[in-house]
Amino acid sequence: MCELLGMSANVPTDICFSFTGFLHRGGGTGPHRDGWGIAFYEEGGYRDFRDPHPSVGSPIARLITDYPIKSNIVISHIRQANVGQVRLANTHPFVREMWGRPWCYAHNGQLDGWRGMPLSYYRPIGDTDSEHAFCWLLGELRSRFPERPTSDAERQGLWRLLHQLCERLRGLGVFNLLLADGDYLYTFCSTKLAHITRRAPFGRASLSDAELTVNFAEHTTTRDIVSVIATEPLTDNEAWERMAPGELLVWRDGVIQARIGQRAA
Amino acid sequence: MCELLGMSANVPTDICFSFTGFLHRGGGTGPHRDGWGIAFYEEGGYRDFRDPHPSVGSPIARLITDYPIKSNIVISHIRQANVGQVRLANTHPFVREMWGRPWCYAHNGQLDGWRGMPLSYYRPIGDTDSEHAFCWLLGELRSRFPERPTSDAERQGLWRLLHQLCERLRGLGVFNLLLADGDYLYTFCSTKLAHITRRAPFGRASLSDAELTVNFAEHTTTRDIVSVIATEPLTDNEAWERMAPGELLVWRDGVIQARIGQRAA
Repeated sequence: MCELLGMSANVPTDICFSFTGFLHRGGGTGPHRDGWGIAFYEEGGYRDFRDPHPSVGSPIARLITDYPIKSNIVISHIRQANVGQVRLANTHPFVREMWGRPWCYAHNGQLDGWRGMPLSYYRPIGDTDSEHAFCWLLGELRSRFPERPTSDAERQGLWRLLHQLCERLRGLGVFNLLLADGDYLYTFCSTKLAHITRRAPFGRASLSDAELTVNFAEHTTTRDIVSVIATEPLTDNEAWERMAPGELLVWRDGVIQARIGQRAA
Repeated sequence: MCELLGMSANVPTDICFSFTGFLHRGGGTGPHRDGWGIAFYEEGGYRDFRDPHPSVGSPIARLITDYPIKSNIVISHIRQANVGQVRLANTHPFVREMWGRPWCYAHNGQLDGWRGMPLSYYRPIGDTDSEHAFCWLLGELRSRFPERPTSDAERQGLWRLLHQLCERLRGLGVFNLLLADGDYLYTFCSTKLAHITRRAPFGRASLSDAELTVNFAEHTTTRDIVSVIATEPLTDNEAWERMAPGELLVWRDGVIQARIGQRAA
């Protein structure tokens, strides 16, 4: 199994603290030695850093922890390979452009019968179930929404379709998902995803996986809202909320915009 | 104007030496302070590093010069903005997936009337003439070749079409191009591109832009073939060949596979 880490914030925020704990799971406290990646949205632009080597000991991972990149949305993934070789082409997150937006995707889990999912606009570059599912999912969204939704009603239609597609993938196995388009972060829970929203008054947090404590009050203003989503809670002194299986959350600026699925039903 | 750097090699090769000289032009010996990027193809995978800040002083650029990433194809770009703001979304190289391949593109020059070029499968994320031209060009290739060419005849048809599209873009202004799909590197000259092929017996080379000399014989085997392409020669003690305006070269494994255009005519 892999590990997922996501962030949605209303101000450009660096993820160094959370990422420091997270990357320790990549061959440190965790068994996920088969590559890692992290993607940042910055002012409408996108970049990712991916490495097919363990994150512990990776000079690129060290750069990310030392060089604060400020971003509104982050998606990160540490891989333990089950389908597809350990190589760069199979390293999450994956990205494709739709409607002039970079869509970024990372998946935790394993799917059966994924080779049968029909592809249209997008084709996988590597040979994982995860990337195939991404290409299928984005192709389905694009077929139904050739242009970017502009009204609230259209957006809610898009989100409902996304939830249906996620449910179909959950039917094939385990499908925990982080997906983003630069404005919205989408998180879908199949078996495990937990989240926490930090806002004023900010307190201290200490990592579960590494000896590090941060006092967020020293790094924030009273208007900041920063939400972190991960397969397992990253801190041991805060109350993380666990998502329900089958639940899709739509995040923007650190705040949940929509809940679709089990809990809402 | 921007600067371009490309490499095609028959063995995974690090570009640290050439990149060291090249990045000095990014705010050091050159005026190109508006961002830089470098893309690597590794074992069928792709990754790029992009920064909207000057390459001189960039911790990410320093990482690239210190951490040898071995690759068969490299494309790098240093930007001096003329169209589009200085921001990540406008930072080359650009990438899109076609036929399950990551296509990477960097452009030197400026185009007129580019907003009129019709788009189909691909849309720009930023607002530069360069990325718009890329989306147009790739969309035209995909319209004519919905599937990846498999025969020599089809491939040559693709290359001739690529040359025609480059010539149309050259008609709109200045269009020096580096383009790659993981197997082939395509270089098109509008005003300036020069190349050099290094093979056994390897000698010494010294950079024009920084005080650094390398003895390639210490880093290579007798079967290695490594070609470097740049807007301006990077070394001052080797004989670089300048491309002719309107000429397209198709490179694979460090060797020119096809020449299309002026010189061949």
